[in-house]
Amino acid sequence: MGNCIVPYCDGPKNTNIRFTLPAVCFVWQSAMIILFGVFVRYNEEADTHWVEFKAKHNITSDIENDFYYRYPSFQDVHVMIFVGFGFLMTFLKRYGFGAVGFNFLIAAFGLQWALLMQGWFHSLDPADGLIKIGMENLINADFCVAGCLIAYGAVLGKVSPVQLMVLTLFGITLFAVEEYIILNLLHAKDAGGSMVIHTFGAYYGLSISWVLYRPNLKDSNHLNGSVYHSDLFAMIGTLFLWMFWPSFNSAICDHGDGQQRAAINTYLSLAATVLTTVAISSLFQKHGKLDMVHIQNSTLAGGVAVGTAAEFMLMPYGSLIVGFCCGLISTLGYIYLSPYLEKKLKIQDTCGIHNLHGMPGVIGGIVGAITAAAASVPVYGEEGLINTFDFTGSFKNRSPAVQGGYQAAAMCVAICFGIGGGIFVGLILRMPIWGSVTDDNCFDDSVYWEVPDKEEPAPPVLEYNNHMASHMNV
Amino acid sequence: MGNCIVPYCDGPKNTNIRFTLPAVCFVWQSAMIILFGVFVRYNEEADTHWVEFKAKHNITSDIENDFYYRYPSFQDVHVMIFVGFGFLMTFLKRYGFGAVGFNFLIAAFGLQWALLMQGWFHSLDPADGLIKIGMENLINADFCVAGCLIAYGAVLGKVSPVQLMVLTLFGITLFAVEEYIILNLLHAKDAGGSMVIHTFGAYYGLSISWVLYRPNLKDSNHLNGSVYHSDLFAMIGTLFLWMFWPSFNSAICDHGDGQQRAAINTYLSLAATVLTTVAISSLFQKHGKLDMVHIQNSTLAGGVAVGTAAEFMLMPYGSLIVGFCCGLISTLGYIYLSPYLEKKLKIQDTCGIHNLHGMPGVIGGIVGAITAAAASVPVYGEEGLINTFDFTGSFKNRSPAVQGGYQAAAMCVAICFGIGGGIFVGLILRMPIWGSVTDDNCFDDSVYWEVPDKEEPAPPVLEYNNHMASHMNV
Amino acid sequence: MGNCIVPYCDGPKNTNIRFTLPAVCFVWQSAMIILFGVFVRYNEEADTHWVEFKAKHNITSDIENDFYYRYPSFQDVHVMIFVGFGFLMTFLKRYGFGAVGFNFLIAAFGLQWALLMQGWFHSLDPADGLIKIGMENLINADFCVAGCLIAYGAVLGKVSPVQLMVLTLFGITLFAVEEYIILNLLHAKDAGGSMVIHTFGAYYGLSISWVLYRPNLKDSNHLNGSVYHSDLFAMIGTLFLWMFWPSFNSAICDHGDGQQRAAINTYLSLAATVLTTVAISSLFQKHGKLDMVHIQNSTLAGGVAVGTAAEFMLMPYGSLIVGFCCGLISTLGYIYLSPYLEKKLKIQDTCGIHNLHGMPGVIGGIVGAITAAAASVPVYGEEGLINTFDFTGSFKNRSPAVQGGYQAAAMCVAICFGIGGGIFVGLILRMPIWGSVTDDNCFDDSVYWEVPDKEEPAPPVLEYNNHMASHMNV
Repeated sequence: MGNCIVPYCDGPKNTNIRFTLPAVCFVWQSAMIILFGVFVRYNEEADTHWVEFKAKHNITSDIENDFYYRYPSFQDVHVMIFVGFGFLMTFLKRYGFGAVGFNFLIAAFGLQWALLMQGWFHSLDPADGLIKIGMENLINADFCVAGCLIAYGAVLGKVSPVQLMVLTLFGITLFAVEEYIILNLLHAKDAGGSMVIHTFGAYYGLSISWVLYRPNLKDSNHLNGSVYHSDLFAMIGTLFLWMFWPSFNSAICDHGDGQQRAAINTYLSLAATVLTTVAISSLFQKHGKLDMVHIQNSTLAGGVAVGTAAEFMLMPYGSLIVGFCCGLISTLGYIYLSPYLEKKLKIQDTCGIHNLHGMPGVIGGIVGAITAAAASVPVYGEEGLINTFDFTGSFKNRSPAVQGGYQAAAMCVAICFGIGGGIFVGLILRMPIWGSVTDDNCFDDSVYWEVPDKEEPAPPVLEYNNHMASHMNV
Repeated sequence: MGNCIVPYCDGPKNTNIRFTLPAVCFVWQSAMIILFGVFVRYNEEADTHWVEFKAKHNITSDIENDFYYRYPSFQDVHVMIFVGFGFLMTFLKRYGFGAVGFNFLIAAFGLQWALLMQGWFHSLDPADGLIKIGMENLINADFCVAGCLIAYGAVLGKVSPVQLMVLTLFGITLFAVEEYIILNLLHAKDAGGSMVIHTFGAYYGLSISWVLYRPNLKDSNHLNGSVYHSDLFAMIGTLFLWMFWPSFNSAICDHGDGQQRAAINTYLSLAATVLTTVAISSLFQKHGKLDMVHIQNSTLAGGVAVGTAAEFMLMPYGSLIVGFCCGLISTLGYIYLSPYLEKKLKIQDTCGIHNLHGMPGVIGGIVGAITAAAASVPVYGEEGLINTFDFTGSFKNRSPAVQGGYQAAAMCVAICFGIGGGIFVGLILRMPIWGSVTDDNCFDDSVYWEVPDKEEPAPPVLEYNNHMASHMNV
Repeated sequence: MGNCIVPYCDGPKNTNIRFTLPAVCFVWQSAMIILFGVFVRYNEEADTHWVEFKAKHNITSDIENDFYYRYPSFQDVHVMIFVGFGFLMTFLKRYGFGAVGFNFLIAAFGLQWALLMQGWFHSLDPADGLIKIGMENLINADFCVAGCLIAYGAVLGKVSPVQLMVLTLFGITLFAVEEYIILNLLHAKDAGGSMVIHTFGAYYGLSISWVLYRPNLKDSNHLNGSVYHSDLFAMIGTLFLWMFWPSFNSAICDHGDGQQRAAINTYLSLAATVLTTVAISSLFQKHGKLDMVHIQNSTLAGGVAVGTAAEFMLMPYGSLIVGFCCGLISTLGYIYLSPYLEKKLKIQDTCGIHNLHGMPGVIGGIVGAITAAAASVPVYGEEGLINTFDFTGSFKNRSPAVQGGYQAAAMCVAICFGIGGGIFVGLILRMPIWGSVTDDNCFDDSVYWEVPDKEEPAPPVLEYNNHMASHMNV
């Protein structure tokens, strides 16, 4: 993609976003208010009519409101989205504001748009044509946003906030359609979103990065690296993602055993990933020294890969095996595959999302398909099998083997939406109207942020110099 | 307030708190132990007699203990108080220890005193005259502390820890009285404390800052600014406040739909605030660059403003509108109003709490009054209306319109307590016995903290100099 | 221990862990997979057979699954283990990677091994000889890991990651045995693990540090101190530990009042500790300045000391008294005892775990014994007494006084296991095969980590030098 296929893309760059960014924010937020006013209401568990709903459905206690099943997980997911993704990307020495700040901006916009888009597909009340939202919608909106934040990782430091807003608008839309196809039409299961979120998000971001390829970037990439404290900030992101991933994968699982099993599986898979990540990182570095990039990212791969099968009877050892493999593959990806992708395929992947979300997401989809196909009554129980795979209604007669096939089909849908959507959106982002940054100013906060002056230079050195200068004058 | 009205306030400053700080801590903590020993016991849900209580009230399961309805929110609120407020104030380049450390100190003291003060008003057991505490008391104590931490924001860097302890002692006391008047006598609703917490806290702090006005401060304010990493630390505070605000506003709402609705409203309002904050920040800065001060603070204004009405049927679009307006007003406040307040009204507001808590708090009170007055049976349902506004007992015949009037009256009470209390406490803090800091040493941790040496100056530079020096000697 | 008693320990140090670390990680993780495959399954609440279990036990709602009682606390404990312990140890100026990273590594390994070891003792299903795990096992595994992380604090910066893996392997094993003796054989209660976790962990770590004594360390300890920002990173750890300690102490308490009471007691104890810590820190420092070391550590002592008695009817004032004493003792420990331990007893305790976990843990055990011995029916109620102390089965006739005796015995077991186990493991760690660091390189991340280059020296200084140099050449 070194040759520019869009004629208008090589003009002089103008990073002044004083008009476009406010315009986009105001117009889109106003649109949200209007659309929410026309379409969105509380569902019956969040509405004051809950008291009548309770009576009607013989619910004996307020604690059976879905809110209490999901709220702790919801808050954990929220932390992952804003602190987890945000701080994970602060590893660059001078792009911390952009990492945390733009992550914040696009997540806050994205979740509103996601509530609408997902609501139209999943929460439309046929009685009055309104979208009825509750706790589960909020979690799903955070999930939807996660897809776009993953994509942001590939283009971190190389795009303007306006481009990110566009990336998010289209990303959420594509996500909602893809999710509808996978969950409703194919009736695939994907509790933790290995396919729907991670695979889609990763290939969406990588495709955009491919279209936006910057051939001269490496000449000016002295800012494309970390400093000591920025690596510690990034570890805040890593740890909050790692710790709360069991909540991510269990947040929208079935009440009762489903949520618990998903949490256990994720917990175990992540634990195993840490050890193989450390092993590979040490083994492939001279003197066996560990690389912070691997610890920050590859340790999370197990959570991605166990997402689809989280609610299944994967068994504790199954989760460990998934985690074991992912730590290995993800770390090797950082060492061998990322440089290859950049050199040969012209894909510049700032955060290495292909290693953290792409490959583990695909592995997750495959694990999910195999585990689903292997499900059986002896392991799940009669009712357990039906509950876990939701073999009800028009899917009453689907067998586990067939379900496995649909799971595999779902994976293909996620990849296609990611790549196709990414190329489409990438071409839009090449228009010169979005305030994109020049190669020289990539990875530099000072383009879009008022950056405080550096700390004063250490006084003793200066004094010493002055002292010398006075000597010289003599 | 340039002229000193308290005769003893202009003597030489003595920042040595080696006697006063330990004395205050020991005496007050001992007093707490004695008062708790005489007055405070567990309530029936935290006591071992819960098993009998359960039987008596036909409670079928332990999960219906109030603990399980509120504990997740409680912990989120706790994070907001200690990490949220603490780190939000670390933006100054050399006042991180004071921000996090003194926030920690006064919160830990304040919550004990709050348990007593609020307990006397709300949790007194008439049977034995003892205060009976449980989960809800702990949340309320954190709320009460929040009022004082907001006030700390106005005087950050300009007061001693002993002054902060005094500020907290009186602040908690005033808060408890004000809260009793608003919630019990006026029977106003204020789930998220727009009035009780934010409006009171903001005007309390601003009034203190007014009384403690330092006319010569700007000459020495090279420390009154941020450095790159201090801005990132502050973002930790911002994000934890932002993410957990739904828990803050829903923590003491009614079981069931009340808590869920409050969480949804807050989530939406905050999302909208982010976009308008970014828009205004970019629009009013040269080259459209974003200002970290706005992102750190104004993005939170929507959570403040939706506090009073959080539990009402504000509707999702209503929440978005509130958030939209608050991001706008709060950011404009930082740009235009704060400099004006400092120059004309002699109010030095280090963190800009007037923009983050003051104005949004007042907006929240107004929104609450309007929404309450507009409440109707068609929207809330018969029972829903009674439950939401607690139209029971002696308030059985109150109409929504009348409730709106009382809500407005409550707002006035909060402002009066804030301003009146703040001036009173400010005068007390002017006494020269509290170890206050001189103008020269404001915003400098080294006055009250053992600060580690700077990192060694970069060796290469030194070596180079030495090399030059040896040349010169030749 | 200045003289080396193990003949092979004084050979030249080789810090290259490129073979040993990967080998240990791969072999142990593979062993975990095999052992989990053979021994570990989901328990009936995490299994798809939950639906049948529910029917059999007349459980009416999914919300009564143990998962919903414990998951919020579990996540808080998880945060304490990974962010709390990890960041608390980042206070050293150049050991942040090792603090957070190795903490991450050994916790991730430790919890797998703990699930097995504790499972064998506590969760073995006699029907099929398999370990059945659920939410409570995950919490207990985190608890078990906490013991080893405490021990890490004593040897922070002085050991290799391989040594830490060995320390963890043996630590978990010893912990599981000790816990079995204390909880099952002696039938002592220890909800928050003052004895089982903190006392054991502290003396285990101190004994190891004693065996690994480095007499020449002080000559090269310019890295054994903090810088400004590293102290702020450490405060992240402190605050998350402090805030979530109520969850730690209540996580495995009885459903209902037990969990709530434990949370309240811990909350109060910790609040009191902050004030006495600040008081002592200021009182014993010249000019009354506060020391970050005390604020970071001693403020947590109250949570440790209230652990054993957390679930008892300690009363709110009792909790405050415990916290009051611990803040005092712990801070005095940092000022007087730690230097003494290092000089006279040759115990180098990097993080001062003796002051944070050792002494407070012992105090906690004593408080637990006294409170248990003083328990009575008037205070607890007939059923409450039986529930709280689990006076059922073969312990039906145990009196509170006798229980107090067993609590004291349990404390002795914890200390003996800690000291004995620590000396044993310390001797193993002296073997020269673990890649240990030399005295010169202690507290330095660059031994085991790829550390990014320092930030570029401030350009103005360099330019000025160049300018001078050119003048000189003329």
